[in-house]
Amino acid sequence: MASGWFYLTCLVLGSLGSMSVLFTAYWMQYWRGGFAWDGSTHMFNWHPVLMVTGMVVLYGAASLVYRLPQSWVGPKLPWKFLHAGLHLMAFIFTVVGLVAVFEFHSHENIANLYSLHSWLGITTVILFACQWVLGFAVFLLPWASLWLRSLLKPIHVFFGASILTLSVASVISGINEKLIFSLKDPGKPYSSLPPEAVFANSTGLLVLAFGLLVLYILLASSWKRPEPGSLTDRQVWLSVPHSRVG
Amino acid sequence: MASGWFYLTCLVLGSLGSMSVLFTAYWMQYWRGGFAWDGSTHMFNWHPVLMVTGMVVLYGAASLVYRLPQSWVGPKLPWKFLHAGLHLMAFIFTVVGLVAVFEFHSHENIANLYSLHSWLGITTVILFACQWVLGFAVFLLPWASLWLRSLLKPIHVFFGASILTLSVASVISGINEKLIFSLKDPGKPYSSLPPEAVFANSTGLLVLAFGLLVLYILLASSWKRPEPGSLTDRQVWLSVPHSRVG
Repeated sequence: MASGWFYLTCLVLGSLGSMSVLFTAYWMQYWRGGFAWDGSTHMFNWHPVLMVTGMVVLYGAASLVYRLPQSWVGPKLPWKFLHAGLHLMAFIFTVVGLVAVFEFHSHENIANLYSLHSWLGITTVILFACQWVLGFAVFLLPWASLWLRSLLKPIHVFFGASILTLSVASVISGINEKLIFSLKDPGKPYSSLPPEAVFANSTGLLVLAFGLLVLYILLASSWKRPEPGSLTDRQVWLSVPHSRVG
Repeated sequence: MASGWFYLTCLVLGSLGSMSVLFTAYWMQYWRGGFAWDGSTHMFNWHPVLMVTGMVVLYGAASLVYRLPQSWVGPKLPWKFLHAGLHLMAFIFTVVGLVAVFEFHSHENIANLYSLHSWLGITTVILFACQWVLGFAVFLLPWASLWLRSLLKPIHVFFGASILTLSVASVISGINEKLIFSLKDPGKPYSSLPPEAVFANSTGLLVLAFGLLVLYILLASSWKRPEPGSLTDRQVWLSVPHSRVG
């Protein structure tokens, strides 16, 4: 039953994540002129799509790897590789998303890193990079002692959730900023809530709902990977096929 | 030792919270012309100060009541009153902060509730109101069964932390929006990072650090109120003065 709820929640999460990415892409395609890689505003349009995809949706999915009941039995190493690999993919999307906005600024002679959105965003990406490197060094490379790993694990988990929170706050302030900058037509300003504003505001709330649901799944105690040696009936049941194979 | 760390963390938290409020007030006083209650932009200036004070700092302090080791022994009811009372105070600050911005908009013929900042902010305040009323009805009024309370408690705790997260995201997008609207002097625009921009951006990061530290204290398992019947040595020690008095 708990497992049924888990998969139902994952289904909702998958829908929210896909919609967040698709809505952001549609906003950029339909109202902001689509995509290019030429330093123009069409190059900027990759920025929101890649940041939502990388820093929120892929990051969120990567952070939930150990909540899959399948990851609770058998060796942990393949799941660690999946966790690190998905986060690396998220990071690559993020870096390309940053290149898109920096190149656009450089091409259009716009200053970099002045708004609070950009300060928060760059802080988030730097924290993400530190978190990935430290996570790789301590939890994947074989040198670290169990003592060090158990000391750093709660810090790794807390910063993981915090970085997602910062990402979502960056996305919210970014969408708000983009709409203020773009919707300046006196005939239909942002304050008159034209369809683009309603659509992009709603996209922001979708991203927020996705982020909160990831945090909920991360925190829900019954969905956490139990410590070794405390297998429940459900896990024993899950491990049966492995025993048969072995 | 754990207790020493807790109080040290609270000291840092208190400093971050006080600085968040003082910095916001200083920004409004020094760069935005100070405060009034007359529908002008000086009335708007109450909005950031009251929202940071109510929805972030007081809310954060209120949410940590059960992390005080003193609350772990003796009757829980006085601490429940303190928790609800501080949150009520936070809510009153929030409502006055909303009045300040709505009255300013009305006086200056500016549309209400169009930006993503305002959508997110009003969603947060509505969730806060629902959370307070439900919390009061279920956890303070005597009718609810223990079963209902233990069913709703994790939901109450999760929404409590989520509302703080949404508040911080609202503050970040609000500061960003205010700076975009205000720093339009072609001689020193927002993009040239004048002192006001650096100061207000830094204030946003302070509020963020406060919010993350509250979430850290809420989540740190060793600082949580233990379930009844599982007193640790530390709690027994804490309960000694009570025993002597009794």
